[in-house]
Amino acid sequence: MHFTVHQKDPHSKARTGLLDLPHGPVQTPVFMPVGTNATVKAITNEKLEELGISLILGNTYHLFLRPGLEVLKNSGGLHRFMSWEHNILTDSGGFQIFSLAPFRKVEEEGVVFRSHLDGTRFQLTPEDVVDIQRTLGSDILMPLDLCTPPGIGETEALEAVDLTTRWAGRSKIRWLESDPTVQGHLFGIIQGNFYASLRRRSAEQLLELDLPGYAIGGLSVGESFSMFQDFLGLSAGLIPERYPRYLMGVGTPEYILEAVEQGIDMFDCVLPTRTARNAQAFTSRGPLSLKTEAVKLDLQPIDPDCSCSTCRSYSRAYLRHLFKTKEILAAMLTTQHNLSFIQSLVVSIRQSIGEGTFLLFKDRYLDRYGRRSSQGSGESAGERANEQFRVNGGL
Amino acid sequence: MHFTVHQKDPHSKARTGLLDLPHGPVQTPVFMPVGTNATVKAITNEKLEELGISLILGNTYHLFLRPGLEVLKNSGGLHRFMSWEHNILTDSGGFQIFSLAPFRKVEEEGVVFRSHLDGTRFQLTPEDVVDIQRTLGSDILMPLDLCTPPGIGETEALEAVDLTTRWAGRSKIRWLESDPTVQGHLFGIIQGNFYASLRRRSAEQLLELDLPGYAIGGLSVGESFSMFQDFLGLSAGLIPERYPRYLMGVGTPEYILEAVEQGIDMFDCVLPTRTARNAQAFTSRGPLSLKTEAVKLDLQPIDPDCSCSTCRSYSRAYLRHLFKTKEILAAMLTTQHNLSFIQSLVVSIRQSIGEGTFLLFKDRYLDRYGRRSSQGSGESAGERANEQFRVNGGL
Repeated sequence: MHFTVHQKDPHSKARTGLLDLPHGPVQTPVFMPVGTNATVKAITNEKLEELGISLILGNTYHLFLRPGLEVLKNSGGLHRFMSWEHNILTDSGGFQIFSLAPFRKVEEEGVVFRSHLDGTRFQLTPEDVVDIQRTLGSDILMPLDLCTPPGIGETEALEAVDLTTRWAGRSKIRWLESDPTVQGHLFGIIQGNFYASLRRRSAEQLLELDLPGYAIGGLSVGESFSMFQDFLGLSAGLIPERYPRYLMGVGTPEYILEAVEQGIDMFDCVLPTRTARNAQAFTSRGPLSLKTEAVKLDLQPIDPDCSCSTCRSYSRAYLRHLFKTKEILAAMLTTQHNLSFIQSLVVSIRQSIGEGTFLLFKDRYLDRYGRRSSQGSGESAGERANEQFRVNGGL
Repeated sequence: MHFTVHQKDPHSKARTGLLDLPHGPVQTPVFMPVGTNATVKAITNEKLEELGISLILGNTYHLFLRPGLEVLKNSGGLHRFMSWEHNILTDSGGFQIFSLAPFRKVEEEGVVFRSHLDGTRFQLTPEDVVDIQRTLGSDILMPLDLCTPPGIGETEALEAVDLTTRWAGRSKIRWLESDPTVQGHLFGIIQGNFYASLRRRSAEQLLELDLPGYAIGGLSVGESFSMFQDFLGLSAGLIPERYPRYLMGVGTPEYILEAVEQGIDMFDCVLPTRTARNAQAFTSRGPLSLKTEAVKLDLQPIDPDCSCSTCRSYSRAYLRHLFKTKEILAAMLTTQHNLSFIQSLVVSIRQSIGEGTFLLFKDRYLDRYGRRSSQGSGESAGERANEQFRVNGGL
């Protein structure tokens, strides 16, 4: 994988760069919308392209269960199946196995679980997970890992780190075997819970594999913002500059700005799309509920400072009506806005890094948007926690 | 209103024409997608414009209840509220009062009913219904009428016809009073159930009012196709050539072709959009279910002969997956296809009329699509009947 750092902010670890992926170049920092079931919910590929999105995330667990590999193989992979010509990063499915499956058991060999859809029993090894992502044709593959929840003991967290490393090693072997031309790049995932020594241990072990990029797992799982900041800074600092750094599960302005400041290049989150379907819209002055009585007669767009196609044409009053009447268009228009909003933020971040003014930009942005301690932005960690890993006694 | 007949088919009553409406000209024959709650469900205005749609239908009853007149007035009318720059025809609300309201009573003065949403009691007179549509800013207004179900006695049907006429007269007076520039055109609605003499009586009475156009109500309500044909032919023949003729509640290929042959210029129906959300797609060879196991591995587009944006990019297998996973995109893509399909049919009909080959076109089309007696197309009358007028004992 070619990852090139372009500009470095002189006052922080923020940087811009370019990921050269099989389905085209991707500018970083980049936010990846989540396309769980081979679609980013409530938005067309056309609209995603209009927003300049060139990398989305797919969920291996969901796609493995539905439509299943037979259908995906028959279509020639995920890109052709969903008619998406740009890049796709797929996760390992591990996170969903632990958060959704009604039963799962971790063994050295891999994970045994039952489907949350019909109870069918499956075993997935790290090798299987690579093979599945090869079938999908992913541009970036993630190896099976073990993400532990906050609050577990150090011994358990240590075992999870070491197993994650052994699985990553097996994943790398299978990845190299399965396609000698190395289309599609395998990342490592740094774990270690909230133990600094384990974060270091995980990073050291995984860096020995010299994978094309590194992700930071197990953060933004319900911990306080200051603990998030501490462990983000620690973990990001462990990944050498030449690697793309991917922070999993982050997608609100205050988390994105923090991540970029700490040198993160990539992030993904369901929040912009999920909250849109729940009538929560981003604005430059903080989140806005589109169901509240307060906007009943409000003829302003969601965000008067936004120039997206929703804000150019539709009022808050109209969107409230669409949510009240449960119209599909409500989700469509608000999803478009929320993704456009985050995409604009990321573009502005890149510009400010290019101009050496990132910290100033961040400060001014948060002056208007609201800071992490303030009321409106408290949903991120909580929302994230909802679908986060549950303690797995099987380790 | 300026309605101009352009071409007449030499072998049938089919014709092309132009409606000159306040929000731009509309070519006829025209199919109007239904936008119940100030949105055509699951499709953006942008897409509707791409399809060449310049006239949609709004439901007065629904809009009166939600968002209500305060919100609509505050937005400057329905067009601005929903950001639709083209024409809107609004129905009178009468049909919904009789099919949805848990209680309603017909009096000479108007209709008393309770909202199906919260039971609130309302009275609406013919004058109120005109006023509401003026507030909406409708390009075509429909007067309050009384549509009776098949099977009622002739006396009851006669009373409904005469009341419909008296209400139409009052509506015309209010319509002329309420806007001397006569922006927005009031149509008459011919009723008469399935009694030929009453159809004639209704048409004669309403034609005396010399309204800008005439609709045929009370057809496609569950009757046999041959009875539909008979009463369509009779009713359409009663409307002089110079008036635009609007057949309410028709929207499948075989009904549209029949209507055009009988000289109908306008039709509307929820079917193309509603069935799309239920995984039923139109194809040139008849309806196709997108949920069936048969299309699990089918890489063909919905209709290989269709060039809409859905058919250009997506397979039946993919759409089946989207329906199986209840993704919003399923409704979006299939709605787009179904409306595009009907719109293409209407454009082809216009061309064939221009070329004097309409009957040949119709025959060849139905050879492929299937005729009314065949299996696949039986849903139209049934679906329509679902939301049709229920017998109202209050008359």
